[in-house]
Amino acid sequence: MGSVHVQTMSKQYEVRIDTGLRHQVGALLKELLQPVSSVLIVTDSNVAPFYLKDVIQSFDESAVVYDYVIESGEASKSFSVYEQLLTKALEVGLDRKSAVIALGGGVVGDLAGFVAATYMRGIRFVQMPTTLLAHDSSVGGKVAINHRLGKNMVGSFHQPEAVLYDTDCLMSLPEEEWKSGFAEVIKHGFIRDEAFLKQLEKEWTSFKTISVERLNDMLARSISVKADVVSEDEQEHGIRAHLNFGHTLGHAIEAQLGYGKITHGEAVAIGMLFALRLSEEMLNVNFHIEQYENWFLQLGYRTKIPASLNRERLLQTMSKDKKVEAGTIRMVLLKRLGEATIVNIPPEKIRVLLDERMEGAHG
Amino acid sequence: MGSVHVQTMSKQYEVRIDTGLRHQVGALLKELLQPVSSVLIVTDSNVAPFYLKDVIQSFDESAVVYDYVIESGEASKSFSVYEQLLTKALEVGLDRKSAVIALGGGVVGDLAGFVAATYMRGIRFVQMPTTLLAHDSSVGGKVAINHRLGKNMVGSFHQPEAVLYDTDCLMSLPEEEWKSGFAEVIKHGFIRDEAFLKQLEKEWTSFKTISVERLNDMLARSISVKADVVSEDEQEHGIRAHLNFGHTLGHAIEAQLGYGKITHGEAVAIGMLFALRLSEEMLNVNFHIEQYENWFLQLGYRTKIPASLNRERLLQTMSKDKKVEAGTIRMVLLKRLGEATIVNIPPEKIRVLLDERMEGAHG
Repeated sequence: MGSVHVQTMSKQYEVRIDTGLRHQVGALLKELLQPVSSVLIVTDSNVAPFYLKDVIQSFDESAVVYDYVIESGEASKSFSVYEQLLTKALEVGLDRKSAVIALGGGVVGDLAGFVAATYMRGIRFVQMPTTLLAHDSSVGGKVAINHRLGKNMVGSFHQPEAVLYDTDCLMSLPEEEWKSGFAEVIKHGFIRDEAFLKQLEKEWTSFKTISVERLNDMLARSISVKADVVSEDEQEHGIRAHLNFGHTLGHAIEAQLGYGKITHGEAVAIGMLFALRLSEEMLNVNFHIEQYENWFLQLGYRTKIPASLNRERLLQTMSKDKKVEAGTIRMVLLKRLGEATIVNIPPEKIRVLLDERMEGAHG
Repeated sequence: MGSVHVQTMSKQYEVRIDTGLRHQVGALLKELLQPVSSVLIVTDSNVAPFYLKDVIQSFDESAVVYDYVIESGEASKSFSVYEQLLTKALEVGLDRKSAVIALGGGVVGDLAGFVAATYMRGIRFVQMPTTLLAHDSSVGGKVAINHRLGKNMVGSFHQPEAVLYDTDCLMSLPEEEWKSGFAEVIKHGFIRDEAFLKQLEKEWTSFKTISVERLNDMLARSISVKADVVSEDEQEHGIRAHLNFGHTLGHAIEAQLGYGKITHGEAVAIGMLFALRLSEEMLNVNFHIEQYENWFLQLGYRTKIPASLNRERLLQTMSKDKKVEAGTIRMVLLKRLGEATIVNIPPEKIRVLLDERMEGAHG
């Protein structure tokens, strides 16, 4: 079992990491959320058949527990599903002492968290991530829905009361999901914890055989990095932007391919290698990128920009990233392993390296 | 000119009260919001013809200024208008350094404020109230939209960067609007400032002739009470609930008559007299209610519960008020003039006094 403490301006809370936590939710919430008048569990059509019943049964008979199952997938982070959830909350009579439980991956966490952030101007919520990728999104209080003109464009900062991470849920995930989530783990090493990065390189060369101990340890350490960053900068006025390492190009690749055509983590992996190369060019360092590229390939990642993508369109999306003010291309680079920095890059530099990192460019 | 300072946990800001402020918005924002990349003015179809042009022209040519005019009226505090505004914000490219200006009454302030609270997880906004009632809603950071199952059920706490109150806008308001807003002014006297209440009784016996000096002074003092309460309790965990004085019955009257059939202030006036009577019964005090009833009548208020309303339905709504936890009827009463307190009331007590305060009950 692991535990990470998160301390922000607006709230402090604990991330518990352990097998079988889903069977203890009722008891844990009694301890963490007293008093709670009623609970709404939000989950999706993939997760519900496996874990919803366990969570419901963890409450004793006096508890008032409702649930709502959304369709799995990014399309549920919509205005209409958001409104449906608020309607459900009103119909069952959630009040200011109620809580929302987000049982699922990032989509469920973001959506249910935004419902909790805005229902009656904010009620409490608890994150129960069921994917590896959600180890990242469930910590830090960023909640949002999508707009057809942009992902996560409508949302809040609303910290959970607790994150309960039942690692049993990860064991049955397909390899694609491991790959997608593990890129964020590696990112945490790159931007803030070199020793952790080295350990990952040594211990994680495949997702085929994973021990619970190694998994819990890895999650606790990865979440610690996220928690530290969020503690220093809850609302992304400064160093929280370092978490975007690999994401400026990553988002552009996802957007141009169409969301869902490549996993988030795979796009971020390509973006991180690009950002390492750019760091070498801009900051006069040498990261021996071949070594990381080989590791990524061993883990099954693509490492180059898909050849079907258009360079100028990638560049345009990168410069319109919502983290970027009008015109300039600000990117997170590494000064050295474990230390990130933000640099304004001339588009010309980026063009050259986009070409270099295209599939087939060296081959 | 008046000025009130608001200091909350999350932000401090100034409420400026003066004639002609709408002509100075551009210059004031340069001072208050540096840097601001672009501005979206949200206003409604009643206000736009009178003041929108003045506000736009107050900016110099280098400023990037957009505007969006909603239909006036409570129906605009809907999910669909909320989404339309977010679409507008994305289409014109508002970014994290942009600001929203809410030019109008409570509907515009609540809606535009909620857009600002959730666009890209929160951008800055400025309140420009144009009604007397909005002197109350524009200060304190409560923003929201309505759901068909309840008013203000979806929202946030999001403090403005500033409140710019151009009192020219009030001079042309119809008497109904004065009556509606003035009830909140009186409320501020009742719950926290007896001397202010006495002054109001003496100086305000009609809305026919109003001097700018008297108006500015009254607004500054009324807003000071609101600012003090909000400063002590931004998110309504405690004494902010005192602002609900007169509102538990007031809301029930509005809900049962149908919103728009009676002004908010008129319903609150009836609610305040009811709460005074209930205070006498519960707290062993004597407020000489006839004196307030006569003053209210002189100002043109109704003072009794409309005879068409059903007592049990009022009671039910009062006990389901969202400020109330399951079952109990918590109401704000006065221990003495200028000092509020919260009391749990047995429904039976309320029944008796509802009967007493019905139109026609005393002949």
